[in-house]
Amino acid sequence: MQTSVDCLPCFVRQTLDTARACSPEPAVHEWLVRDVLRLLSEIGLDSSPPVIAQAIHRRLREMTGIDDPYGAEKERFDHMAEELLPGYARKVASAADPLDLAVRLAIAGNVIDLGAKTGLTEREAESEIDRAAAAPICGDLEAFRRRAERAEHILYLADNAGEVFFDRLLIERLPRGCVTVAVRGAPVINDATMADACDAGLAELAELIDNGSDAPGTVLADCSAEFRRYFREADLIISKGQGNYETLCDESAPLFFLFRVKCPAVAAHAGAPLGAHVLAGLPPITAGGAAQ
Amino acid sequence: MQTSVDCLPCFVRQTLDTARACSPEPAVHEWLVRDVLRLLSEIGLDSSPPVIAQAIHRRLREMTGIDDPYGAEKERFDHMAEELLPGYARKVASAADPLDLAVRLAIAGNVIDLGAKTGLTEREAESEIDRAAAAPICGDLEAFRRRAERAEHILYLADNAGEVFFDRLLIERLPRGCVTVAVRGAPVINDATMADACDAGLAELAELIDNGSDAPGTVLADCSAEFRRYFREADLIISKGQGNYETLCDESAPLFFLFRVKCPAVAAHAGAPLGAHVLAGLPPITAGGAAQ
Repeated sequence: MQTSVDCLPCFVRQTLDTARACSPEPAVHEWLVRDVLRLLSEIGLDSSPPVIAQAIHRRLREMTGIDDPYGAEKERFDHMAEELLPGYARKVASAADPLDLAVRLAIAGNVIDLGAKTGLTEREAESEIDRAAAAPICGDLEAFRRRAERAEHILYLADNAGEVFFDRLLIERLPRGCVTVAVRGAPVINDATMADACDAGLAELAELIDNGSDAPGTVLADCSAEFRRYFREADLIISKGQGNYETLCDESAPLFFLFRVKCPAVAAHAGAPLGAHVLAGLPPITAGGAAQ
Repeated sequence: MQTSVDCLPCFVRQTLDTARACSPEPAVHEWLVRDVLRLLSEIGLDSSPPVIAQAIHRRLREMTGIDDPYGAEKERFDHMAEELLPGYARKVASAADPLDLAVRLAIAGNVIDLGAKTGLTEREAESEIDRAAAAPICGDLEAFRRRAERAEHILYLADNAGEVFFDRLLIERLPRGCVTVAVRGAPVINDATMADACDAGLAELAELIDNGSDAPGTVLADCSAEFRRYFREADLIISKGQGNYETLCDESAPLFFLFRVKCPAVAAHAGAPLGAHVLAGLPPITAGGAAQ
């Protein structure tokens, strides 16, 4: 998915958020934002939004010398999610359709996105997740269920810290011994890295790898050869979040995208309204069940 | 009021809105936004937001050759307000306190601001105005009433097209023969110019002047000598909208600001929450009633 001009004001806002995560000094915020304004005035829009965000966040790290501006925020949301998890796990276990609720909760966890929203608080996230767990899903849950039941090599692309705890509920419902979870190769915004996945206990349930990239999405050309091998060999790829959707929606692979629609550009591309909880299978499945 | 770094993403969004009002071509939008990103990367933030907006909109007019990108939008909102006016005029006439309702409606009309919100529709504006007319006012209506009753030279600084129709309801409650209404000297965003004030019938109620400036606010140094004389000689200046607040809040003059708080930067400066309907008198009035 190409970057829209509508992404540009959003990149400036995101830069400002990151600048504030790096320093309390207004002069530093101005210095960083001016630099990114110049960068954006010259950057090509042919690539996907996460490729541009990758360039911005590399530049911000380079200028500030701070490798993980959202480190403390990620811990906060991991902690919040850890507290909430047992309650939701009980609800899933006693649900009439546990997979249905686990999918809803995995998508609901996607509200924990500090790239898309300025100043998200834990309380906001908590009440959003509660509401989101009951929200209708835009997509074909039965197609997902069928694919998940017979999959042998599932690659699960995580999105954000905190959210990975909710992913756990879904991974627990997938065939045992078949799942590999991939996180980002380095910190970017509040995207989950290996530490967050370990905190969420995913190592007990699945193989954990990182994708070797610092993009807030899955830019295949920027990922490690090892990650690309997993991607190629998977018979089901569960892709969480807008960043992974923006970078993979044009790929020919057995993908299911699970995400909350957070901006008009993605809403237009996905054909789903702002705020929708999407479960979108790509490419269309043939009668025989193999990806086209 | 100085420009905040938080204004920068908003300027980029406003540029994109204006670009779309100028042309349906995505290549034109990108061309204009890139140019403004470069401009913003270098511009000083010591001046108020309307000074920067003035530079941006001059640049956009220069690049596109389009003098009034919002011309059609302004007509649309003038027309909508014209349709609504008789109903609201009846409500004011039969209200227990007509001045109170007229002030509420004058502030409510300030929702018609295409600089602060992307894609405002007439239906949204109409329902907002209806709700806003019943909203509590942050400010001292009795102080305003006392000042208005004994004022002899009232300068009324209009803000937006459409909104001027609602200003009419308030101007009708001010002492006859004492009011001068000032509009912008040239089109900028959807700010009211002489044509809008005439459409709203303000010429029947007040003297009409323009301020000689194309800033979306009142930048005194950029206004005509004639306007500055009216400003200096007024014993009450009723200033509508955020743009006028941002440019005049540090002036020493007998000002009353009437506006809706539309952004966090103004909310922080005015000490009122986002969405609040403000009636703020500046400077504090002495016991004798003269401005300090």
